[in-house]
Amino acid sequence: MSNPALAKGTRDFGPRQMAQRNFILENIAAVFKKFGFSQIETPSIEKLDVLTGKYGDEGDQLIFKILNSGDFLKKVQTQDLENNDLKKLTPQLCEKALRYDLTVPFARFVTMSRNELTLPFKRFQIQPVWRADRPQKGRYREFVQCDADVVGTDSLLCEVDILAMINESFKNLGIDDFTIKINNRKILSGLAELIDAGEQESDLFVAIDKLDKIGIEKVLEELSQKGFSATSLDQIKQFLSISGSNQEVLTALSSLLHDSENGQKGIEELQTILSLYKDYELPLNTQIEVTLARGLSYYTGAILEVVANNVKIGSVSGGGRYDNLTGVFGFEGVSGVGISFGIDRIHDVMTELDLFGEILPTNTEIILCHFDEASFKYAVRLAGGLRKAGVSTEVYPDHVKLKKQLNYANKKAIPFAGIIGDDEVSQNKITLKDLNKGEQHSFTKEECIAFINKE
Amino acid sequence: MSNPALAKGTRDFGPRQMAQRNFILENIAAVFKKFGFSQIETPSIEKLDVLTGKYGDEGDQLIFKILNSGDFLKKVQTQDLENNDLKKLTPQLCEKALRYDLTVPFARFVTMSRNELTLPFKRFQIQPVWRADRPQKGRYREFVQCDADVVGTDSLLCEVDILAMINESFKNLGIDDFTIKINNRKILSGLAELIDAGEQESDLFVAIDKLDKIGIEKVLEELSQKGFSATSLDQIKQFLSISGSNQEVLTALSSLLHDSENGQKGIEELQTILSLYKDYELPLNTQIEVTLARGLSYYTGAILEVVANNVKIGSVSGGGRYDNLTGVFGFEGVSGVGISFGIDRIHDVMTELDLFGEILPTNTEIILCHFDEASFKYAVRLAGGLRKAGVSTEVYPDHVKLKKQLNYANKKAIPFAGIIGDDEVSQNKITLKDLNKGEQHSFTKEECIAFINKE
Repeated sequence: MSNPALAKGTRDFGPRQMAQRNFILENIAAVFKKFGFSQIETPSIEKLDVLTGKYGDEGDQLIFKILNSGDFLKKVQTQDLENNDLKKLTPQLCEKALRYDLTVPFARFVTMSRNELTLPFKRFQIQPVWRADRPQKGRYREFVQCDADVVGTDSLLCEVDILAMINESFKNLGIDDFTIKINNRKILSGLAELIDAGEQESDLFVAIDKLDKIGIEKVLEELSQKGFSATSLDQIKQFLSISGSNQEVLTALSSLLHDSENGQKGIEELQTILSLYKDYELPLNTQIEVTLARGLSYYTGAILEVVANNVKIGSVSGGGRYDNLTGVFGFEGVSGVGISFGIDRIHDVMTELDLFGEILPTNTEIILCHFDEASFKYAVRLAGGLRKAGVSTEVYPDHVKLKKQLNYANKKAIPFAGIIGDDEVSQNKITLKDLNKGEQHSFTKEECIAFINKE
Repeated sequence: MSNPALAKGTRDFGPRQMAQRNFILENIAAVFKKFGFSQIETPSIEKLDVLTGKYGDEGDQLIFKILNSGDFLKKVQTQDLENNDLKKLTPQLCEKALRYDLTVPFARFVTMSRNELTLPFKRFQIQPVWRADRPQKGRYREFVQCDADVVGTDSLLCEVDILAMINESFKNLGIDDFTIKINNRKILSGLAELIDAGEQESDLFVAIDKLDKIGIEKVLEELSQKGFSATSLDQIKQFLSISGSNQEVLTALSSLLHDSENGQKGIEELQTILSLYKDYELPLNTQIEVTLARGLSYYTGAILEVVANNVKIGSVSGGGRYDNLTGVFGFEGVSGVGISFGIDRIHDVMTELDLFGEILPTNTEIILCHFDEASFKYAVRLAGGLRKAGVSTEVYPDHVKLKKQLNYANKKAIPFAGIIGDDEVSQNKITLKDLNKGEQHSFTKEECIAFINKE
C-alpha cells in the first residue's frame, strides 16, 4: 500500500511534542508522589459488561468495542441480524471494549483488590482512553487522562490536598495565573430542596451546567419550558446571582438555604475546606462559584474546576467527591474524591503562553563529528568515555561532509559539537563548538566533560 | 453487576508492580537518551489496512479489530454473511485495529513524516501492543514493548551502539551475567548459497530457528523431509557445529563460505562490529552464534538476542538490521537497525534474581499521625512545610487510633512516622519514628527535614 494515513481523531507525537508532554506529565506525577499517591495501571481492554451502563446511553454509544477473535459470527442470533438490532448484536459480536475513562476501571480495580488494599487508598493513573466522539479541534478519539483519587475516607483533607496539588502542579509548569472554582453538590441539592424540585433535580443541574455557554436568561427559559414555576425561577435567579468574596458567598448561601439540611452541610464542608486550605498557606486563587455544577452525576460533595486566566481555553482540570464509586460492582460504602488533569488542554495553554521555550526535542548534549576513518575511530572511543561520565553523546554514524553533520545537529537542536580532525587525534584533544553561541574551545576529554556539565 | 473480572490475558498493575516496572523502563529510557534516541508515540488505534499483510496470515488473525461505530452493519455484504466469509466480513465491520507491534506503526510514522524528519533518525518508543494470542504463563494479550531503532543509515556503528545500550541497561538494572548472541543474516544466506537452497532459503532459516528447542537431529530430519539432499544436510550440520571464540568462528566461517559473496559480506560486517565494540571498551559478553536465525523475515544484516545466564527464561531482548522497513508504504531505500527489550521477561528475571529489594511501592517519606483536632491542624501546617522542602509527606486523613495510622504506614512501607501529640504541639516539635529500626527522635521541623534528607 502507498500513502498510509492515521485513523480519524488520532495523533502521532514526534520528539518535540513528546518532550513537551513528558514535561507536563512528569511534573504532575512528581506532585502526586509528593502527596503520597501511588501509581497504578489497568488494562486498555476491559470486558464490555464492566464498561456498559456506567456512562449513560450516549456514553455507551461512544465506547469502542473489539470484535471477538476467531469465528465472530458464532454467537450472532439470525433474528437480531434480520432486525438490524445493533444494540442486541453488539455484545454478540464483541465481548471486550477499550476503556472510556480511568474512573470505572479504577472502581473495578478497587473492588477486585479489596482484600489486599489498605484503605484509604491514594492512587494516580496516567493512561490513554478512547471515545468514538466526532473529532474536532481539541477533541480526539484517543487521549491521555491523568487522574488522582483517594478512596475509603470522608476526610475533607483529601479535597484540600487536591487543591494543594493543583497549585503546586500549575506553579511548576509555569502557569501562574489561574482560578480554582469550587462548589458543593449539596449546596445545589439545597437549592433543589428550596424550590421543591423533586425528581427534576437533574434537569436543574444540567441547565445550570450550561450557564457559562448560554447565559442566565436562556437557562431560565429552558427551566421554564421544563415546567419550573415563576417563584422557583425567581429563587434560582437569586441563587445564581450570588457572588463576591468567599465569605460573602457563604453568608448569602447560609441565609438563602437556612432551611435545607443538605445546603447547610455543603456550606459547612466548604468552610472546613477553606480553613484547612489556609493552614497549608496556599495562594488565594480558590473561588466559590455557586453556578459550578459539573455534568457527571456521580458527584455528591465538593466539585471543582480549574481555568487558566487570560487564555480562551475551557477548564484544564476538574474533579470532586463521589460517595459510592464501587457500589455498581457490589462493593458498597467506599467514598472518594478525585481530580483529572486535562493534558491536551494544559498543552494548549502552555503553547499559547509560550512556556515550552527551554524544552528541547533531544537529550543529546554533544555530537562528535569526524572527517575520516581515523577520526571516526577516535570519536567512538571518546563517546564511550563521555557517556561513562554521564554526558549524552552521539557520534555521527556516516562518513559525510562536516556541513551535513552540523546540519543534523542543528535540526535536532543539539547544543554542542565536538569536531575531530587530524590535529585533535594527534594531540588527544577535542574542539568543542557551542552551536548556539558559535564559540569554540580546544579541550581535553576531562575539560570537555567539566564544561558541558557546567553549562 | 457484581464480581467484575479482567479480560482474558490482561493484568492490573498495583503500586508495587508499577514501581518495579517503572524502574525498568526509566533505566532503559535513560540509556536510550544517553545515546541520542528521542522518544515518540504513535496511536494505539491504526487503520486496519496499515496493519494487515505485514505479519503474515497468522499475524493478521491475531490483530484485534475494532467494530465500526454507529451502524456497523451498513457496509456488510449479505452474500458474505450468508457464506460466513469471515475474512471478507472483517474489513466490512472494522476499519480500525489495535497496534500489533511498534515496528509497523513506526514505519508508517517515518513514511508520513519523511519531509520533516532529518535522517538518520534515532527514536525510542515505549507503548503497549495487543495480540489475540492464547494467553499462557508469560504471554499476555496486552503487553508493553520497549523499542529503539535508527533509520536512514547503513553505518555499523548503530549495531555497536545497540550492543553498548544493552550492556549499560542490564548493568544498571543489576543483571550482571548475560550473553549477547550475535549473527548475520548474510552468513545464513551464505549457507543457503553454499547448498544451493534457492527458494527453500526460508525453510532452512525456519528449521535453524528451532535448533534451541528441538536439537540438531530433529532439525536435519525436518530439512530432509523438505527435500534437502544428503550432501546439503552434511554441510548444514558442519555449519551448525561451528563454535568457539569469536575469532575461531569467523575463521571457520571464512573457510566454509569462501565462495559466497553474501557470506563474506556478513563475516566482514561482524568483524567491523566487533572491532568498534572494542573501541567502546565494552564487556566481553558478545558471542557469535551461527545457529541464531530469528524468525522475522525482514532482517537482512546483523541479528542479535540477549539471554540472562543461569535463569531459565528465554531471550530478554532481540533485534537486528532490516533493509527496507518503509518500502511497504512506498518509501524505499530506508535501512535501519533496532532492538526490542522484553519488559515482562526482564521483570521475571529480576524477580528470580531478587533485584527489586530496595524498590518501595510508595514515594511517601513520612506520614504525620495525630490524636485530636488540634494535633491534626498542626500536622496539616507541618505537612505544608515539609513538602515545600521537597519531602514527600502524608497526613493520615481521619481521626483514628494511632495503631491504625501506623498500620497504614506499615502496609504502605512508609519509612518514617511523625507522631504529634499535645507536647509536640505546645513545644512546636515533632517526634520522628523510624518505622524500620524502631528508633525515635524529638526534632524541630528543620531538624526533621535534614534528618530525612540525610537518610
